[in-house]
Amino acid sequence: MNSIETNPLEGYTPGEIMIKFIKTLSLHLIHLAEKINLDEVMSFIKAILESENIFILGAGRSGFVARAFAMRLMHLGFNVYVVGETVTPRIRENDLLIAISGSGETTSVVDLGRKAKKKVNCKVAAITARKGSKLAKLADIKLIIKGKDKSSASRGEDKRIAPLGTLFEISSLVFLDGVVAELMKLKNLNEDDLRMRHSVLE
Amino acid sequence: MNSIETNPLEGYTPGEIMIKFIKTLSLHLIHLAEKINLDEVMSFIKAILESENIFILGAGRSGFVARAFAMRLMHLGFNVYVVGETVTPRIRENDLLIAISGSGETTSVVDLGRKAKKKVNCKVAAITARKGSKLAKLADIKLIIKGKDKSSASRGEDKRIAPLGTLFEISSLVFLDGVVAELMKLKNLNEDDLRMRHSVLE
Amino acid sequence: MNSIETNPLEGYTPGEIMIKFIKTLSLHLIHLAEKINLDEVMSFIKAILESENIFILGAGRSGFVARAFAMRLMHLGFNVYVVGETVTPRIRENDLLIAISGSGETTSVVDLGRKAKKKVNCKVAAITARKGSKLAKLADIKLIIKGKDKSSASRGEDKRIAPLGTLFEISSLVFLDGVVAELMKLKNLNEDDLRMRHSVLE
Amino acid sequence: MNSIETNPLEGYTPGEIMIKFIKTLSLHLIHLAEKINLDEVMSFIKAILESENIFILGAGRSGFVARAFAMRLMHLGFNVYVVGETVTPRIRENDLLIAISGSGETTSVVDLGRKAKKKVNCKVAAITARKGSKLAKLADIKLIIKGKDKSSASRGEDKRIAPLGTLFEISSLVFLDGVVAELMKLKNLNEDDLRMRHSVLE
Repeated sequence: MNSIETNPLEGYTPGEIMIKFIKTLSLHLIHLAEKINLDEVMSFIKAILESENIFILGAGRSGFVARAFAMRLMHLGFNVYVVGETVTPRIRENDLLIAISGSGETTSVVDLGRKAKKKVNCKVAAITARKGSKLAKLADIKLIIKGKDKSSASRGEDKRIAPLGTLFEISSLVFLDGVVAELMKLKNLNEDDLRMRHSVLE
Repeated sequence: MNSIETNPLEGYTPGEIMIKFIKTLSLHLIHLAEKINLDEVMSFIKAILESENIFILGAGRSGFVARAFAMRLMHLGFNVYVVGETVTPRIRENDLLIAISGSGETTSVVDLGRKAKKKVNCKVAAITARKGSKLAKLADIKLIIKGKDKSSASRGEDKRIAPLGTLFEISSLVFLDGVVAELMKLKNLNEDDLRMRHSVLE
Repeated sequence: MNSIETNPLEGYTPGEIMIKFIKTLSLHLIHLAEKINLDEVMSFIKAILESENIFILGAGRSGFVARAFAMRLMHLGFNVYVVGETVTPRIRENDLLIAISGSGETTSVVDLGRKAKKKVNCKVAAITARKGSKLAKLADIKLIIKGKDKSSASRGEDKRIAPLGTLFEISSLVFLDGVVAELMKLKNLNEDDLRMRHSVLE
Repeated sequence: MNSIETNPLEGYTPGEIMIKFIKTLSLHLIHLAEKINLDEVMSFIKAILESENIFILGAGRSGFVARAFAMRLMHLGFNVYVVGETVTPRIRENDLLIAISGSGETTSVVDLGRKAKKKVNCKVAAITARKGSKLAKLADIKLIIKGKDKSSASRGEDKRIAPLGTLFEISSLVFLDGVVAELMKLKNLNEDDLRMRHSVLE
């Protein structure tokens, strides 16, 4: 081709990018597991175990991660609510608010986190990629989960195979399902205990 | 141990189970990437590219995976709707219904999949762990994504660290984000193109 | 007019149709209030008061009516869940399922109502416009709320000013808010008691 | 009264409060219809007809009213999205944001309304009971729908039979369904046109 325009599909091999994405992500997760701050994790788990009610907050795809975690906390027997859903009651002082935002700057998440601190002064746990963000700053417990690698070499590639918050979103879902596994152990629950609470109306 | 009661926390090391979970999952994903049926994947991608509208369906945690994928399809510029959300219109013959269910037996998902085939005879793509399930059988395109390993050795452990559909749910999210990466390439879109469609009201 | 085409806006007076709609609806509601079957209503209220947990089910605009009622039941202090939302647990024998469908034939509502009867044999209350519908037939308690008038004279007009299920949807919301007022009296609660449970994170 | 405890059910007649509620509401609606500001209504309808996309925003029970209206706008053929749902794209300058809040002070609704004005300067329509509220002040179009009567005589009763925002919520739903009837006339659509877009997957 001697034209200025290039064909984006030149050299395209079906599935190649998908496979590269899955491998990149897997390595990211293993890297995450090796560098986990276990003190942070155990503070988070302690807050879940000691709170009367747990409220979960997130927007966009982080909101779906939030709800996937909330559903498992219900299966584990916790009193848990999703901010914005129908039956969610007033939050109170002895409750825990878990807020998820990759950037830590999502308007509604930051505003409602602030409102919770101001109105009832409950404990707030932030799950975010940025420890300097507004959300991290207002939180009592901070779980920092890295998304994209900031090194110049891999960053361009990350943007092409894992756009926007993809790495953070999947990593935080995986991380929170790891917390679920810890909670099963700590509460001595097995899969059947969870199944007993799983909705049949779906 | 000669006592009847055992202490479930005997020998408990904080974070150990979480780290084991993340590593098990990562290996599961790499294994998945190596065994992907690329013909199935490319049929699925082709159906997405050729359909007028795309409808996404799922219940429980698979429903959150469904919505996370739907949101990215919107970012990519597709006409996409989530079954059960407010602005979802009538599905038509040239549309694609993507239904996600690990067991492939979820009542509402199977019933609505069947209704779509019967009422408008649109194309149906099933994302499920079980190729013999009702959902897989009614679908035109089947993407089989393994969840738990069926080998006796690892199965007990899987249940303790990844209860219920956990492995399927995360794997299908990762797999679908891999499809997003393929679609970015095929439509020659970069991260900024996606950001341009990302909601600012959140 | 000597043209074949007619102007749909000929003789259009802004707001006239809206005002006619509001007056028609108001008369419909007064008519409904006069013909309410109080035995049915009291059976419904009794079931709410005596159940351990209450599950609410509805699709489309009836689903929004369902959720508006669920939210008030939460404000009143009941254990209430919306089928399909995140934290909704397994329904059990001593629970009540309230299903709303104007036609009484909505696939997912009928199927899940049947599944609840079959799996746990809980009490089912149907709120519908049609007492011969599948939903009404499977229910233990039937609240029949008329939508459109079936008389030939008014029916054409109803379709123009209150399309599809509009009359049923609004009437059932109003009716259920009437049930809320009865429950406040029966539980001796005032507005401040409800406000105490109202979410502040919105 | 010479007893310390009073029986809240003394003189209780089943259904009496429900019937009083329905009649009070019906009269409120007729009163509303008679005092409607038709200039405001027609500005609102004009904005709907002239916008490229329509975004709907509301929290709590006002959020369900918002979604019920959004669904009908979809049935009427408009490009409409609910803020916070999955497939909602970025709002743009030529779009309309319709925000519903009885008090006009709901944090997330006011904040996102402000953000929309600041980020893209789209048109904002406020549907609220209070014309001096933050939401009304930031809006280009204000539809004031009275909830509770402020007169001292009826107010105590209103609180007992129509707690919190009940009158506003039902009135705004009714009012917006009146707007739907006007739009059907203005776009020359009949019930069958709406049914053609109504979801079958429910």
